Amino acid sequence: MKVTVSRKAHFNAAHRLYRPDWDDTKNEAVFGKCSNPNYHGHNYELIVSVKGEIDPETGFVMDVKVLKDLICSEVEDAFDHKNLNLEVPEFKNLNPTAENIVVVIWKKLRKHIKTTLDLEVVLYETPRNFVKYAGE
Amino acid sequence: MKVTVSRKAHFNAAHRLYRPDWDDTKNEAVFGKCSNPNYHGHNYELIVSVKGEIDPETGFVMDVKVLKDLICSEVEDAFDHKNLNLEVPEFKNLNPTAENIVVVIWKKLRKHIKTTLDLEVVLYETPRNFVKYAGE
Amino acid sequence: MKVTVSRKAHFNAAHRLYRPDWDDTKNEAVFGKCSNPNYHGHNYELIVSVKGEIDPETGFVMDVKVLKDLICSEVEDAFDHKNLNLEVPEFKNLNPTAENIVVVIWKKLRKHIKTTLDLEVVLYETPRNFVKYAGE
Amino acid sequence: MKVTVSRKAHFNAAHRLYRPDWDDTKNEAVFGKCSNPNYHGHNYELIVSVKGEIDPETGFVMDVKVLKDLICSEVEDAFDHKNLNLEVPEFKNLNPTAENIVVVIWKKLRKHIKTTLDLEVVLYETPRNFVKYAGE
Amino acid sequence: MKVTVSRKAHFNAAHRLYRPDWDDTKNEAVFGKCSNPNYHGHNYELIVSVKGEIDPETGFVMDVKVLKDLICSEVEDAFDHKNLNLEVPEFKNLNPTAENIVVVIWKKLRKHIKTTLDLEVVLYETPRNFVKYAGE
Amino acid sequence: MKVTVSRKAHFNAAHRLYRPDWDDTKNEAVFGKCSNPNYHGHNYELIVSVKGEIDPETGFVMDVKVLKDLICSEVEDAFDHKNLNLEVPEFKNLNPTAENIVVVIWKKLRKHIKTTLDLEVVLYETPRNFVKYAGE
Repeated sequence: MKVTVSRKAHFNAAHRLYRPDWDDTKNEAVFGKCSNPNYHGHNYELIVSVKGEIDPETGFVMDVKVLKDLICSEVEDAFDHKNLNLEVPEFKNLNPTAENIVVVIWKKLRKHIKTTLDLEVVLYETPRNFVKYAGE
Repeated sequence: MKVTVSRKAHFNAAHRLYRPDWDDTKNEAVFGKCSNPNYHGHNYELIVSVKGEIDPETGFVMDVKVLKDLICSEVEDAFDHKNLNLEVPEFKNLNPTAENIVVVIWKKLRKHIKTTLDLEVVLYETPRNFVKYAGE
Repeated sequence: MKVTVSRKAHFNAAHRLYRPDWDDTKNEAVFGKCSNPNYHGHNYELIVSVKGEIDPETGFVMDVKVLKDLICSEVEDAFDHKNLNLEVPEFKNLNPTAENIVVVIWKKLRKHIKTTLDLEVVLYETPRNFVKYAGE
Repeated sequence: MKVTVSRKAHFNAAHRLYRPDWDDTKNEAVFGKCSNPNYHGHNYELIVSVKGEIDPETGFVMDVKVLKDLICSEVEDAFDHKNLNLEVPEFKNLNPTAENIVVVIWKKLRKHIKTTLDLEVVLYETPRNFVKYAGE
Repeated sequence: MKVTVSRKAHFNAAHRLYRPDWDDTKNEAVFGKCSNPNYHGHNYELIVSVKGEIDPETGFVMDVKVLKDLICSEVEDAFDHKNLNLEVPEFKNLNPTAENIVVVIWKKLRKHIKTTLDLEVVLYETPRNFVKYAGE
Repeated sequence: MKVTVSRKAHFNAAHRLYRPDWDDTKNEAVFGKCSNPNYHGHNYELIVSVKGEIDPETGFVMDVKVLKDLICSEVEDAFDHKNLNLEVPEFKNLNPTAENIVVVIWKKLRKHIKTTLDLEVVLYETPRNFVKYAGE
């Protein structure tokens, strides 16, 4: 019996949509006010889901406290109260769109989750805009 | 890498569950108070999701501003503050159940979204009742 | 020790903003699309709050099940799945704006709540628009 | 056209994570404060989804009032304001983790839903932790 | 300029509505299924608000991290994953209704907050039932 | 009859807690990671409430569309996708704590709202932290 276990988490960060190989004019033409050189920011809400067999010993697919601690060490410690463009190495040469952020988070978590478990990450950039990545 | 991008939207409308080929007695027997001939209404909440490859140029699957504008022109302008039975052509001969509404919205949006993107629409009729259609 | 006890409830209804002593043109000029003669509708969310001393016998200010039943009989049974303009007597000659609806609900409930308890009603017309009345 | 229809519901219950074949020390070592012998509790939120063809006669996949009543009789009446370990037969010998609860709920509902409809159950144990089972 | 600063928190607990000076029959007659001798439980959501002058040095009324830590030590550590009737001393002889719980929390916090600040506590027992106490 | 009318709005912004008359070391000692020189950001949620008599002509305390447009021109246009420290004149010499932001917003709106109406502003900095100012 395969069950999905999900955990919500949260971080705040500043960013701008920006390609360093374009000048500010082109960045603004494509990305609008999201490309403001002085940055803007978001309360990012995160839902991390793992899917797999229930361990008959514990009744858990994965101990949600372990999942919570993993999200904390891999995502919250790395991203919270940070400027994504300036301070998070993955975005030095990668435009921090919601799409790219969710893929980066998925890759960071994937390394630490058993290969028998499927992983999916949902990232809310605002209460009305969100993205999802499942490794496809 | 296939990412899903979602956008929430909102419209208010009146409707009644009703088949014009049935009389009011039969409509009420099947649809109960939802068939009130004087109509009732809802705050419909909508989540539109598109899934596809990230464009390496922009970091977007689809610019969410474009998606927002498309929902506005195709759904909000057509349905908001309307009587679905009387004023929305798609429901002249189609019972405006949540199931039928979500299929109509999906078809209206599908025409304007690139064929390389999958489309899914979720429609909340109340905070406790909602439906989903993905073109299957 | 005065504690406030609150209960959420819900009803769906159709309405239009409309004064019968104005013609449709004037109604539309003042109320815009909210005056659509074919009606629109909402999921109204309601928060009813009573404030008073804790009864030392029960530890209750007011049994919330009694409050729930009162909201059901006075508000939900009267308004749910109704056309407020056509079917709710209080709005035969009263424009069903959120402000007027919340006052009507407050007056209906006030008669059935002990005079030693203060009463406040919050009414959400949409997730972004809401009103509050406390008898002032 | 296959549409998914979802209904939210709610129950409150006490439980502890506990294997009767382990002593309290081992239960606490594995399950931490969730194994408190005096129990703790949750507001469980439930989302039940059925997926199938729209009935052209009614415009429904399944009448949501029927689904609501089924959730009430099979889940709310059986679990609400109960101690899951002591009073719900399914957990006499099954650790009431969220994963095991969602599978039990799915099995109880599955018997009463037409075989042409797919069934999925989501169970929130807290606003930040939730699980999903779809019969896989 | 007096500003109110609010912080949300969370704890899970088991309880039953119960007066030890009444027998189980009378407790059940008055409190219904909330008096189940085997307990039931809730996800209690808490909003703690302090109101006072903005400190011109910091721009804070009260550092929200200090408020968060105070709620953690005084409320979460004392109540989370506990049986309120059996394990929380304040309810040994006090019926743990939402009204009584919110007053107990208010009194615990009041001792640690500067007398120049007003204090108000809101406690959600379920998403639909909540109480508020401000020291009146 | 005095009714309160409320409208929710939203803006995203970057900021840092910072006093220009302190060096970065002192700013970090007092404000912690909120003082990151590279900025972080939030999805600020806003609830603006006006309280006054219902106009018997319209049934409105204040037309909520007018209130919505006022919030848009005074708050959203000025703050959305901005760096509060660098781009919003009010914070050139004022630390953009939630407390100071809510007072600035209140003062901006107060000028444009009739003196017969009371004004209150609630500002969510995160889903768990929020502030309120009513002109006291």
